[in-house]
Amino acid sequence: MKKLFIPIVLGTAREGRVSEKVAHYVLKEVRELDQFETQLVDVRDFLFGKTEEYSEASKPWQEIMARADGLIIVSPEYNRGIPGELKILIDSLDTEYAKKPVAILGVSSGKWGGSRMAEAILPTLITLGMVPISPSIPFPVAQNLFDENGKILDDSYKGKLASMVKELTWYAEVLKEARNK
Amino acid sequence: MKKLFIPIVLGTAREGRVSEKVAHYVLKEVRELDQFETQLVDVRDFLFGKTEEYSEASKPWQEIMARADGLIIVSPEYNRGIPGELKILIDSLDTEYAKKPVAILGVSSGKWGGSRMAEAILPTLITLGMVPISPSIPFPVAQNLFDENGKILDDSYKGKLASMVKELTWYAEVLKEARNK
Amino acid sequence: MKKLFIPIVLGTAREGRVSEKVAHYVLKEVRELDQFETQLVDVRDFLFGKTEEYSEASKPWQEIMARADGLIIVSPEYNRGIPGELKILIDSLDTEYAKKPVAILGVSSGKWGGSRMAEAILPTLITLGMVPISPSIPFPVAQNLFDENGKILDDSYKGKLASMVKELTWYAEVLKEARNK
Amino acid sequence: MKKLFIPIVLGTAREGRVSEKVAHYVLKEVRELDQFETQLVDVRDFLFGKTEEYSEASKPWQEIMARADGLIIVSPEYNRGIPGELKILIDSLDTEYAKKPVAILGVSSGKWGGSRMAEAILPTLITLGMVPISPSIPFPVAQNLFDENGKILDDSYKGKLASMVKELTWYAEVLKEARNK
Repeated sequence: MKKLFIPIVLGTAREGRVSEKVAHYVLKEVRELDQFETQLVDVRDFLFGKTEEYSEASKPWQEIMARADGLIIVSPEYNRGIPGELKILIDSLDTEYAKKPVAILGVSSGKWGGSRMAEAILPTLITLGMVPISPSIPFPVAQNLFDENGKILDDSYKGKLASMVKELTWYAEVLKEARNK
Repeated sequence: MKKLFIPIVLGTAREGRVSEKVAHYVLKEVRELDQFETQLVDVRDFLFGKTEEYSEASKPWQEIMARADGLIIVSPEYNRGIPGELKILIDSLDTEYAKKPVAILGVSSGKWGGSRMAEAILPTLITLGMVPISPSIPFPVAQNLFDENGKILDDSYKGKLASMVKELTWYAEVLKEARNK
Repeated sequence: MKKLFIPIVLGTAREGRVSEKVAHYVLKEVRELDQFETQLVDVRDFLFGKTEEYSEASKPWQEIMARADGLIIVSPEYNRGIPGELKILIDSLDTEYAKKPVAILGVSSGKWGGSRMAEAILPTLITLGMVPISPSIPFPVAQNLFDENGKILDDSYKGKLASMVKELTWYAEVLKEARNK
Repeated sequence: MKKLFIPIVLGTAREGRVSEKVAHYVLKEVRELDQFETQLVDVRDFLFGKTEEYSEASKPWQEIMARADGLIIVSPEYNRGIPGELKILIDSLDTEYAKKPVAILGVSSGKWGGSRMAEAILPTLITLGMVPISPSIPFPVAQNLFDENGKILDDSYKGKLASMVKELTWYAEVLKEARNK
């Protein structure tokens, strides 16, 4: 069987976003685990300022999700909700998400690790036919989580990510095979 | 392969609950479609008044969910949230729900068809490892939906339930096979 | 006492947005009721495509909310969640919302009247210190709600809006007086 | 003016509930601050096992909320949602909550401090006309928070509770005066 493909979305476009470091760390770990192909999708690369440019801007995203077998979301919460730019990206497609698993990784500079984002996004993901896997992984106080070289200072995340990748791969394989029947 | 088993939970214990009629209608339709075995589970049959009796009271529920391949929830919303008695029933188990699909059918006497219950219950179902299928089916103004003999007056529900049963069966089969590997 | 000021936010920037008609109808009704000054704020007027322009773009919004005594939100739901452009607008400010009431009016082309948007936005509004008044007003099947001249075809909304304005004004007055003590 | 009255609800009935210690600590702190009269309401004291006994069982709760000027909720989350017994208690009344502020204090044995309960309960509280104040206070890893004598080991909670009581009292006074006009 062809290798699975599961991209990682970085869900904030803000200056100084701490989620960027987490997304790069997740990308590195996922590549080492080598269970599926992946790539980083940065919401910054999508221009959504003018509505007439929506469909044009979302084309690369459509191509990615059309061939994806699942999704990993790395995102902070803003005011206990989803970053608007992430919501716009997700809402720009429709049928491409169905019957594919999704893992949610929350990031925060405070203590709660984006846990409310991980709740708030569920109805949207399920409406689009995705399968959110449990549990989500929170990265609280993420600005202190890495050294100067981007190396993570807390070893426990390695195991958490490995569990997440295992569960996500399980669902991605099972659903890919079933979709193709 | 042994036939699938997917029970239907009636999620309210209140006097005069209109959801009871909907649950019986769903039970009848599901049996006619004959894609899986089913049975009605009434939250009223579980005594949860005293906490020391929780584990004893939830035993029959545990036996049902342990052999279930999925779940159908028929429930109203109370104050835009989940009926407490349904939440207690769900919370009384843990590992029995994992990797099984769940369909959510909302009921209301007003116009909104329990749509907020269908949102509010998602984090709990996903935490327990269930796979909520989309879309939920709302039954608004349900008190006017049946004649004296319990016959439904709106034919469109037959098709909606058939679609739901098809999607639920698809997930139940796929996940059962994968769980047993 | 100086007259209250409560702006109306149109929460979607999409082409063909049906919420625009609802927002204009609400604006007209609110002006006729004459309990407070108002103005329409269109999320389209805020360019949020590039993050370095965020703070510049949100200045007019900051000036509006700084002197506002409350807020009316008219918005659809996209995939059972908040439009991203509305979330970005709201997240672009911080202290300006505190201790001010907010009314939520949902719009949909389907039957559910944006009721899930009205739920999904609550944690964010409360985090910002706002007071969401109950109930929200849903405008389902809104594309059929107006004639060619923008006149509403369902008289019941007049009364619903009058009740909403009464409740919103009550809170706006009470909280304005208390804030100024 | 007669002293304000704001009861504290302990929202779980489970054996071994760690929230009980938090509730007693909050009761003690609130009494010391002496901004309003209070009392502890334990969901265990309400028998809700049989539905015909609902209205009878909820009478003491009705008397409490009818004269209350606000509410403090101390509760864990179960499976990222509200304990069912707390939901049943809240749903047993209707008009008694309107235009009264409510503070939400989450408790957990894990790291997240009941933060999802504090989200999940918002639509219900707002539907009932309450004013949830921000922010909620989380008590994570609460089983390690007290010594043998029930003395709290983390001094920072004293200040957090004082801020909460100040905000809650502000709203309770403002709304009481406005309700009585």
